[in-house]
Amino acid sequence: MIAEKMKDLVNNNSVIREMFEEGKRLEKIYGKENVYDFSLGNPSVPVPDKINETIKNILNTEDACKLHGYMSNSGFEDVRLKIATSINKRFETNFNENNIIMTVGAASGLNIVLKSILNPGEEVIVFAPYFVEYRNYIKNYDGKIIEVLCNDKTFEPNLKEFEEKISSKTRAVIINTPNNPTGVVYSEDIIKEIAEILRKKQQEYNNTIFLISDEPYRELVYDDIQVPYITKYYDNTFVVYSYSKSLSLPGERIGYVVIPDEMADSKIVIEAVTISNRVIGCVNAPSLMQKVVGECADLTVDINEYKKNRDLLYNGLIEYGFECIKPQGSFYLFLKSPIKDEKEFCKIAKKYNILMVPGSSFAYPGYVRISYCVENEMIKRALPQFKKLYDEIKK
Amino acid sequence: MIAEKMKDLVNNNSVIREMFEEGKRLEKIYGKENVYDFSLGNPSVPVPDKINETIKNILNTEDACKLHGYMSNSGFEDVRLKIATSINKRFETNFNENNIIMTVGAASGLNIVLKSILNPGEEVIVFAPYFVEYRNYIKNYDGKIIEVLCNDKTFEPNLKEFEEKISSKTRAVIINTPNNPTGVVYSEDIIKEIAEILRKKQQEYNNTIFLISDEPYRELVYDDIQVPYITKYYDNTFVVYSYSKSLSLPGERIGYVVIPDEMADSKIVIEAVTISNRVIGCVNAPSLMQKVVGECADLTVDINEYKKNRDLLYNGLIEYGFECIKPQGSFYLFLKSPIKDEKEFCKIAKKYNILMVPGSSFAYPGYVRISYCVENEMIKRALPQFKKLYDEIKK
Repeated sequence: MIAEKMKDLVNNNSVIREMFEEGKRLEKIYGKENVYDFSLGNPSVPVPDKINETIKNILNTEDACKLHGYMSNSGFEDVRLKIATSINKRFETNFNENNIIMTVGAASGLNIVLKSILNPGEEVIVFAPYFVEYRNYIKNYDGKIIEVLCNDKTFEPNLKEFEEKISSKTRAVIINTPNNPTGVVYSEDIIKEIAEILRKKQQEYNNTIFLISDEPYRELVYDDIQVPYITKYYDNTFVVYSYSKSLSLPGERIGYVVIPDEMADSKIVIEAVTISNRVIGCVNAPSLMQKVVGECADLTVDINEYKKNRDLLYNGLIEYGFECIKPQGSFYLFLKSPIKDEKEFCKIAKKYNILMVPGSSFAYPGYVRISYCVENEMIKRALPQFKKLYDEIKK
Repeated sequence: MIAEKMKDLVNNNSVIREMFEEGKRLEKIYGKENVYDFSLGNPSVPVPDKINETIKNILNTEDACKLHGYMSNSGFEDVRLKIATSINKRFETNFNENNIIMTVGAASGLNIVLKSILNPGEEVIVFAPYFVEYRNYIKNYDGKIIEVLCNDKTFEPNLKEFEEKISSKTRAVIINTPNNPTGVVYSEDIIKEIAEILRKKQQEYNNTIFLISDEPYRELVYDDIQVPYITKYYDNTFVVYSYSKSLSLPGERIGYVVIPDEMADSKIVIEAVTISNRVIGCVNAPSLMQKVVGECADLTVDINEYKKNRDLLYNGLIEYGFECIKPQGSFYLFLKSPIKDEKEFCKIAKKYNILMVPGSSFAYPGYVRISYCVENEMIKRALPQFKKLYDEIKK
């Protein structure tokens, strides 16, 4: 009954559902407090009080028909200007409202960008491990995903392999820093090298290659790490942003795309992305939430809560003997599986009521993703279980 | 720089923008109160006070992290149950929460349905005149649009032509009642005949043909007209609903899709549509607004305001000599152009500062669409201009 393209998606979905149901099953047997679910990316740090206060203020002051009504497909002009101003102030850029398109979260942002630039059969390069939905987004527009591995020391891209895999069909490259699932933040040097390679290859193929920077975790960084603003290094860059993590608003579906004036044919691209927003059915980003993030453009949740979780979890796991790179951002930790088959490792972990996602779900087997967007107390309760798990495997 | 498929869309967009800019230009010269813009479908009747009150109540009572957080891709279960219950009560149906998928408005609803069922090259039948975006939505999934004309007496579909145009490649039929742009509500008899033809053709081709009922105007009907609930007449029906018009919330992007248990393979279809919601990047409908429409499932704006507009406009135009079918619902009136070329008619109308959309934008030349979702006072001011326009053309 369903479209051919949907069949694989439905089959894969049952795997995700099984994991979710496994969690529920374990909770029923052992009690919620004795199950350690590190599989989800649902923000755990509270929404700032200012969000709900801002919503009430807006409801009290704005005309309801305008507030909840249609606006330009790219969003309210005043909101886009506030966001552009906030970005300019924080990253020394030079955007105005025309460079910003409000979107139904980053997932929609990626979709409308890909729809706008991708012809069937064209290639999009991603760096493994990567957020698995990229594969589906690229397939939506009949593009071909090309994987380039990160090295397992720094989890930064292997640039030699990257350069070799760029072809005349390469239309775009997706980067995600701070990264899901590794927590790594790409250094300025790496960004410069990626940009240099892209410029060289653009010239070689007399083609435009877009860099798409997926940045839902931009604000979630620790230890004063700086996240370079990608448009400053490469003109043909789309920045795709979401407030899902920075303000703990994932259900509200609110984000934006930045398209700099320096991009080739930027005016036409801005128009195409705006039309795509309409044509895929989003029409515009939710209107009340646009106004809210406009008012709260400089605000974030208390990042320190995630840092506490990272430190507690990372230090504990390293102490027990596990290996992993120290996450600099996002709320994930990418643990090396102590046995080769990480799916088997996840299975053994379930005996200790620990739920994690196998690295093969991110096209990077041999590792598992641990989401530490959970209560700090849960990590405290889980750590002794991780120790037992390690000891069982190493005995 | 942009994808091939986008090029036509960008070109067409300039036509829409030109009309918008023409309105702004006229307003600058003649003053806002002397320009009669009937081109837009932006609700004019105020948002019910209960909406903002409900938002505040929800903010005061629900946990912020859960309220603004991720939920199932199909939406909050309690909201879906409330909506199912409301539909059951009003239309004597028998849905539960599993039959409802919350969406980013009806436009997204149509997209995720089409993505879920349509293979490249398969055909979708629409009845002209129709909302022009259907063409884009079908193209998004490489489907082929097949137009069947409505007769110009009743603006109900020509069923003989409909039956002839159903082929082995027909995958779906879109109906839109109350209709944009004609304001016509399909009678129960017509619905029964459409269903009968579809059942016959399903058998003939041993195929499933879906009926997609796009219903953003369901609540906007006048003179006690009944709008049949389509799932009661045909099992393989998707109902695609939006609160954009019934609650004047178009900017908030909130609606739902109904998939009845009676549909062939309904469980798999429900799963496919839910996954499509995720994969096209919506992920889920905006969470706060889900809760709001759950609380306000039985509420509508004051429909009587639109009825007043319809009566004033329709009676005036008929008195002057114009011809049109009396709208039974939605907030549009489809006027027969007094000259053959309706684009020329629109051009002449601009001399009187009247803006309307040519019927060719709805694949039905010779007519123009007048949106009466405007202030009643504007219609009063505009009517003498319509009289002058008619007199000039007929002199």
